[in-house]
Amino acid sequence: MTGKLSEKVLKGDTVATARVLRLIDDGLPEAREIMKKLYPHTGKAHIIGVTGAPGAGKSTLVTKLIGLYRRDNLKVGIIAVDPTSPFTGGAILGDRIRMQDHGTDPEVFIRSVATRGHLGGLSKSAWEMAKVLDAMGKDKIIVETVGVGQDEVEIIGLAHTSVVMLVPGLGDDIQAIKAGILEIADIFVVNKADRPETNRMVRDLEVLLEMAGLKEREWTPPIIKTIATRGKGIEEIREAIENHHEYLKRSGKLEEKIKAQREKELQNIIMEMLREKIFSRIDKEKMDKLIEDIASNHKDPYSIAEEILSSILN
Amino acid sequence: MTGKLSEKVLKGDTVATARVLRLIDDGLPEAREIMKKLYPHTGKAHIIGVTGAPGAGKSTLVTKLIGLYRRDNLKVGIIAVDPTSPFTGGAILGDRIRMQDHGTDPEVFIRSVATRGHLGGLSKSAWEMAKVLDAMGKDKIIVETVGVGQDEVEIIGLAHTSVVMLVPGLGDDIQAIKAGILEIADIFVVNKADRPETNRMVRDLEVLLEMAGLKEREWTPPIIKTIATRGKGIEEIREAIENHHEYLKRSGKLEEKIKAQREKELQNIIMEMLREKIFSRIDKEKMDKLIEDIASNHKDPYSIAEEILSSILN
Repeated sequence: MTGKLSEKVLKGDTVATARVLRLIDDGLPEAREIMKKLYPHTGKAHIIGVTGAPGAGKSTLVTKLIGLYRRDNLKVGIIAVDPTSPFTGGAILGDRIRMQDHGTDPEVFIRSVATRGHLGGLSKSAWEMAKVLDAMGKDKIIVETVGVGQDEVEIIGLAHTSVVMLVPGLGDDIQAIKAGILEIADIFVVNKADRPETNRMVRDLEVLLEMAGLKEREWTPPIIKTIATRGKGIEEIREAIENHHEYLKRSGKLEEKIKAQREKELQNIIMEMLREKIFSRIDKEKMDKLIEDIASNHKDPYSIAEEILSSILN
Repeated sequence: MTGKLSEKVLKGDTVATARVLRLIDDGLPEAREIMKKLYPHTGKAHIIGVTGAPGAGKSTLVTKLIGLYRRDNLKVGIIAVDPTSPFTGGAILGDRIRMQDHGTDPEVFIRSVATRGHLGGLSKSAWEMAKVLDAMGKDKIIVETVGVGQDEVEIIGLAHTSVVMLVPGLGDDIQAIKAGILEIADIFVVNKADRPETNRMVRDLEVLLEMAGLKEREWTPPIIKTIATRGKGIEEIREAIENHHEYLKRSGKLEEKIKAQREKELQNIIMEMLREKIFSRIDKEKMDKLIEDIASNHKDPYSIAEEILSSILN
C-alpha cells in the first residue's frame, strides 16, 4: 500500500498526498515507510517561511503570493501551522476559508496543521509535510506559522527564505516575537503600512538590524512596507523572495542550508526511533516500580536513567 | 564543588541557588550532579502555574499573590518564563522590575528564564529550576508563562494548580490560547474586569466549560473576575488556589500528578542522556559522510538512522 501511495504522490496526486499528510499528522508508522520512498525525490522546491504575530496579515499575504505564483504557472504548496484554540476557532477558520480562493486550483495544495498532539514535535511534522509537497513537485512551498513559540521559530528556521511580518501600533506586547526570529529573518514586512506608526517602526527596525550587525552581512534583510489587504507591496515581497533565493544559490548558502537541515533531520529521526525502541523495551511494570522508587525519594531519576542506558547501549 | 553548592541550596542560600539555576540555564554538566543531590529533597512545595496572553496582567497578579503569601509568612519562589524579544525588551523588563517590590525580601526568590537556547527544551529547564526552589524550601512556587507556545503549555501542565488569565475585549486573535490550555486550567481569571465585554466573556467561558464537559468533573474550574492593578479579586484567587490544593490532596490527585510528572521527568532525562551519548559516538567525519549520502539522495535518513541504531543498541 505504501508503495502505491508514494508513487501517486510523486505523480502529483492530490488525494494520495492528502492521505500521506494525514498519516504524518497522526504519527502513524506507515508514514515512515512512505517518507523513505519520497525522500530521494526532495530538494527541488524553494521553501519559504512566513511568520508574524496573530493578526499580522499572514494569510492575506500568502493568498496574494499564491496568486502571483500561479500567474507564472508555478505549482504551490502551503503548510499553515495553526494555533488551535477554542477561543479563536472562528477567526482562524475564516483565514483558511479566505485562502480557499485557490481551493479549486489543482496546482495549489493547502494543508493546515494544528499545533497540538504532535508526537516528536510539531516542527518535525510540519517539516515532513513540506518534504511531501516537495516530492509531489511543487515549485514554491510556503510554511506559515504564528511567530510566538519555540516550535514556530524552529519551523521557520528550516525554510530557505524567511519572511517576518510586523504591524505598527499593535503595542509592544503583541510584538512579542522571539529574539531568535530577528536572526533568521531574511525579509521583513511591515504590514498595514497606512497606520501612523509605520515610519517609526521601520526606523526602529533599521536601528535594530544595524545594532545586531545584520547590515554588514552579505544579505541585508530588506524592510518592505505593505497593505496586504489591498495587495500593496506584494510584488515587492515576491521580488525580494526571488532575490534572496538567487543570492542563496549564487553564494553556495543554499547548499549549506540544505546540508544543515539534513543533518538536523537525521538527528531527529535517530532520536525518534530511539524513543520508540527504548520505551518499548522497558515494560510497564518495571517502569511503575522505578517511578515508585523515585516518588519515595529512594532514588533520583538521573541515576536510574544512567542504569537503564548502560543496560541498553552496547 | 557540586556537593557544597547543593548543601547550601538545601539551607536556603540565595546566592548558591542563583548559581545552580545559572548552571541549569546554561545546560552545564555540573547541573546534573547537583540535581541528583537535590532531588530527594523535592516534592514538598505547591507549584502554581500562571499563564495568559501578553498583557493579560500576569506579573501584576503574581506580585500581589507574593504579597499575600508573605503576609502569611510563606516562602515564595517565582520562575518567570520570558519570551525574549528585541521588540519588547523594555516592556518585559518593566514587568520584572515591578515584581522587584519583593526584591529585597530574602524569602522571595525570583528568576526569569529566557525562552531560547535551551538544550533539551525550555520546559525541562523551567521544571528543573522549580525543583531547585522546591529543594530550597519554598512553600509556594509560581511558574509564570506566556500561554502561546507548545513549550509553555507543557510547562503549565507540570504545575499542581494552573491559573489561566484572560482579558475581555483584547480581540479574538490575542486570545490565541491553545486548546490544550482549556483542559489544564484549574482556575480561570478574567482580568481587567471593568471592561464592558467582561460579562460576555465570562458567559462564553461558562458555555465552553459546559460543552467540554468540565462542569461534571470533581473539580469545576471557577471563573474569577479581577482588576489586578487595583488588587481586586486577588484574595479570591488565593482562596481558589488553596481550595484546589486541598482538593488535590483530599482526592489523591496530587499523588497521581506527582507520579505522572516523575515518569515524564525520567523519560526526559533518559532521552537527554541518550542524545549526548549517541552523538558523541558518531564522529564528525562519519556524520559528514552520512549527510553527504543523504544530500546526494543516495540514501534516505530513515534507513541510515536504522543502521546507526542497530550498531549502538544491544
